[in-house]
Amino acid sequence: MQTLKLGIAGLGRAFSLMLPTFLADTRVKLVGACDPRETARAQFEADFDAPTFDDIEALARMPDIDAIYIASPHQFHAAHTRIAARHGRHVLVEKPMALSLAECDDMIAACREAGVHLIVGHCHSFDTPYLRTRELIASGAFGGVKMIQALNYTDYLFRPRRPEELKTEEGGGAVFSQAAHQVDVVRLLAGSRATRIRAAVGNWDASRPTEGAYAATLWFDNGAFATLSYSGYAHFDSDEWTGWIGEMGQAKHADGYGAARRKLALVQSRDEEARLKAAGTYGGAAYTSPSRSQPEPRLHQHFGPLIVSCERGDLRPLPDGVIVYGDERCERIALDAPRVPRSEVIDELIAAVHGDIAPLHDGVWARGTLEICLAMLRSSAEQRDVLIGA
Amino acid sequence: MQTLKLGIAGLGRAFSLMLPTFLADTRVKLVGACDPRETARAQFEADFDAPTFDDIEALARMPDIDAIYIASPHQFHAAHTRIAARHGRHVLVEKPMALSLAECDDMIAACREAGVHLIVGHCHSFDTPYLRTRELIASGAFGGVKMIQALNYTDYLFRPRRPEELKTEEGGGAVFSQAAHQVDVVRLLAGSRATRIRAAVGNWDASRPTEGAYAATLWFDNGAFATLSYSGYAHFDSDEWTGWIGEMGQAKHADGYGAARRKLALVQSRDEEARLKAAGTYGGAAYTSPSRSQPEPRLHQHFGPLIVSCERGDLRPLPDGVIVYGDERCERIALDAPRVPRSEVIDELIAAVHGDIAPLHDGVWARGTLEICLAMLRSSAEQRDVLIGA
Repeated sequence: MQTLKLGIAGLGRAFSLMLPTFLADTRVKLVGACDPRETARAQFEADFDAPTFDDIEALARMPDIDAIYIASPHQFHAAHTRIAARHGRHVLVEKPMALSLAECDDMIAACREAGVHLIVGHCHSFDTPYLRTRELIASGAFGGVKMIQALNYTDYLFRPRRPEELKTEEGGGAVFSQAAHQVDVVRLLAGSRATRIRAAVGNWDASRPTEGAYAATLWFDNGAFATLSYSGYAHFDSDEWTGWIGEMGQAKHADGYGAARRKLALVQSRDEEARLKAAGTYGGAAYTSPSRSQPEPRLHQHFGPLIVSCERGDLRPLPDGVIVYGDERCERIALDAPRVPRSEVIDELIAAVHGDIAPLHDGVWARGTLEICLAMLRSSAEQRDVLIGA
Repeated sequence: MQTLKLGIAGLGRAFSLMLPTFLADTRVKLVGACDPRETARAQFEADFDAPTFDDIEALARMPDIDAIYIASPHQFHAAHTRIAARHGRHVLVEKPMALSLAECDDMIAACREAGVHLIVGHCHSFDTPYLRTRELIASGAFGGVKMIQALNYTDYLFRPRRPEELKTEEGGGAVFSQAAHQVDVVRLLAGSRATRIRAAVGNWDASRPTEGAYAATLWFDNGAFATLSYSGYAHFDSDEWTGWIGEMGQAKHADGYGAARRKLALVQSRDEEARLKAAGTYGGAAYTSPSRSQPEPRLHQHFGPLIVSCERGDLRPLPDGVIVYGDERCERIALDAPRVPRSEVIDELIAAVHGDIAPLHDGVWARGTLEICLAMLRSSAEQRDVLIGA
């Protein structure tokens, strides 16, 4: 079994969401971490018996690290990737890859020069049901992709946030954070270069002044078009249409209705909100570690209802399989529940680090997704189509 | 009880779909009809003991008719409306109102000059769940409308068709026939003037060479935007998301999967297809009349899953009620099953004819919907936004 010695840059929310993977995937050994929060560092040292640092330079200098997972706030992704690459570390950087295409170019160049792989994720386009759907499309059995419908209604904007997460110019809001998933999944399934986009973004809660919603049409070189829509202001929960399985593959319960809004309504200030978020994050007072021995049984993760319409069939990825609606009959391709959540990320990372296999979710790929997200903001502001790759 | 003496111009599919209403609504008396098909005329005479004609002039000249329901093929709506108006008959004309805005203007002018009301329908925007949702929005309890999501996946394109129904220039295809519903419903709920649209239309089955699918974003004067998407090529059936209740309010059964495609696959030619359609239509050999005495129990009709997002809540009209997702709780406003399907059309028609009450679905309103449908075709062809009302 090939193992991976991984350093962690940033012990915040993104790390919390990857932690069940790192704990359950026996291929991964966490060998060090950096974070500005002392409580997070202390917890990491206790949990993993590994050194921590308050800056990424020291982490990157550690001997015997294969790769660094850069899970710092979005605005630091570019600088942190450069540092990791300079020290010859392979990079797994969280989505969104960065805040500008110039930063992406810089990151891609830095990793190329250093001869290290750059993988961007976790992103839901790693989820097995989407990858399986992509294979089914590639088989040619259903003809070309013609139309994709992707939607997601969540309480995204009402979860506790740090102040910068509510500032678009610092990478906050639903376009940077959520379209990054949806666009990536849709591109993967369209199997063709995106050529233009027309979008409307919604920013209608003065107390959370960033994009909370959007609707977009995306056109592809093969003639397909996709509808992407998202509401992070939602009261309706579109997980109803994925069998009440949540984004993380967990079973959802109706008695959770309105929980995020209710909790947020008790918060008096932005500072208190940031403290609330920190408390619930790794190392925080209210944080509960995922169990290493008894992971909660979960289905595959997902990013909302999605239908791919091909010439001779519609395909519908779901947390427990892919429904194939053919011309003559409808069948369900069952997928085993994942043993380790998000193990697809580790698969791709290990293949790159140890096998030198070019990752699917590399920097050039992820730059393409950021380009579309930025074009979404511009299309809405300028009220016109924005060409992609032009 | 106010009654309505109604003449019918066109005994085809649209009439078949209104017939359960005419039979069950005791306010309606069918007093005459015209149709080119002799078998349809013979059945009408036998069913209603009323005269029939082979042209609308003769029908319109009949004494003692309150209104004429113009259910002829789309391309005849304008000419037939002019004839009915010239004879002083109120007009109920099927959607789409006509094929061009010039025709709409002509119809509106003809009815105004004659002092008769012009109502366009049935359209699903008459359905009680949408009207109730509109009232809830108008109450102001949820703040302004911000975003609407409407989608519908059906087997529309694979139902038997007359040749002209597969020719866009003659009013065929999903934009004229199906967007006419979806746009109308969305406009009604947005409660504001549409200002621009960007659309993609799909026309990807060479054997059915008209639009079968579309995706569109529609912007409104109040800042709201709407996503409308439709696939009439669908294998997936979005009625799954309306509790498996079909467009006509009927319970759907899973064993019907693929029925339209299977049936169509047996058809050898366009002529045979037209004959198949005629056979299943009123007066045809395979036609079964709806029962007058024992109407099948049904819920409200609908046009696919739809969510209206307001500032303080999401509203979701469904065949048996409206789900109100508020900031704090989610509740379901139950709606009694309709006693008579589509009785809302008769309500509006009788109010206009006998009470001189201006209808909601008048010619000017319906012209607005056609304008958007035409703009949808243009936007897709010219790859740009099209301004509405400009």
